[in-house]
Amino acid sequence: MKLYTSKVAPNPRRVHIFLAEKGVEIESVEIDLGESQNLDPDFVARNPLGRVPVLELDDGAYLAESMAICRYFEETHPEPPLMGIDVRDKAMVEMWNRRMEFEIMAQISGCFRHTHRYWEGRIPQIPEYGELCRKTVLERMAWLDGELADREFIAGDRFTVADITAFTAISLGRIPKIRIAEELTNLQRWFDAVRARPSVG
Amino acid sequence: MKLYTSKVAPNPRRVHIFLAEKGVEIESVEIDLGESQNLDPDFVARNPLGRVPVLELDDGAYLAESMAICRYFEETHPEPPLMGIDVRDKAMVEMWNRRMEFEIMAQISGCFRHTHRYWEGRIPQIPEYGELCRKTVLERMAWLDGELADREFIAGDRFTVADITAFTAISLGRIPKIRIAEELTNLQRWFDAVRARPSVG
Repeated sequence: MKLYTSKVAPNPRRVHIFLAEKGVEIESVEIDLGESQNLDPDFVARNPLGRVPVLELDDGAYLAESMAICRYFEETHPEPPLMGIDVRDKAMVEMWNRRMEFEIMAQISGCFRHTHRYWEGRIPQIPEYGELCRKTVLERMAWLDGELADREFIAGDRFTVADITAFTAISLGRIPKIRIAEELTNLQRWFDAVRARPSVG
Repeated sequence: MKLYTSKVAPNPRRVHIFLAEKGVEIESVEIDLGESQNLDPDFVARNPLGRVPVLELDDGAYLAESMAICRYFEETHPEPPLMGIDVRDKAMVEMWNRRMEFEIMAQISGCFRHTHRYWEGRIPQIPEYGELCRKTVLERMAWLDGELADREFIAGDRFTVADITAFTAISLGRIPKIRIAEELTNLQRWFDAVRARPSVG
């Protein structure tokens, strides 16, 4: 088993934190995104969409998509559970993880991709769209601050993959200068607590 | 148990097809999106993000996000399996479902939201972004056609939630005039086969 990944990109980082929480170590191969190694023919043969991370399974199949990789390890290494503990909790964690993906990560990533010079020449940039994403995520962070007023973690009293998604996204936010507003003290308390976990490194 | 939903929106439709495939019938309450009932205070109390569908559980908790609702029913009504049958297959179905969400549904939805007059005054529209989504999804549909050359369904030889996501998205595409190109015969064959299923109605 081998993980094709990148130390600098947010989606691979989700998988790295997930594996560290479970104490799983696997062989990994660094793909240099700055040098567009993810678009090389030998990499595209593993993932036609040219994205990291990709997990090469022992039977030679390739598994892409961070959350698919996390789900694989959740099944093979159930402890500690990061995707819920029973039917109801699994569904709630899925809800919160998806909310963090669509409301926080997609917005921060959209702002980064459409406003930052790293992406110039790599994708067609529409700065107006990037700024709309920035405005949206600032509103969503205020909402999330309210949600965190009476619980420790995003999906409840236990650390889950929803925390990993939100933390990774908000960490990425510093590149396009999206920061937690000073008055969002619940969100900042949560962010500091996640940042202090050994898995975050 | 009660499902707050809409007959006209693509995400609720994913849940309706999923439940029909499993033969599950539950009480449902229609939310009129055209009249913005999803933004009424009593609905927002169920889902602060103002989106359908929302499942009210028997203990009074609210579960939002289509895929979280589907996962709940996959656990409570495992037959027929729509999210994979073993560890490896579950991960592969998750990969394909996410690819369909990000590469197909998010693009078609982005085009619809940013170019169609239904959304005028409901969201800030950026037509240039909508057109970028249109260009992207046409490329992705050509890629998907190639993937379907040697298998019956999107995640393999079995109908899964990935087919539901892609079918629902491509059906929505006719509103912003995104259609399967004539030369994409594998994709059209797959689309016709899914459309003929009793669950699609």
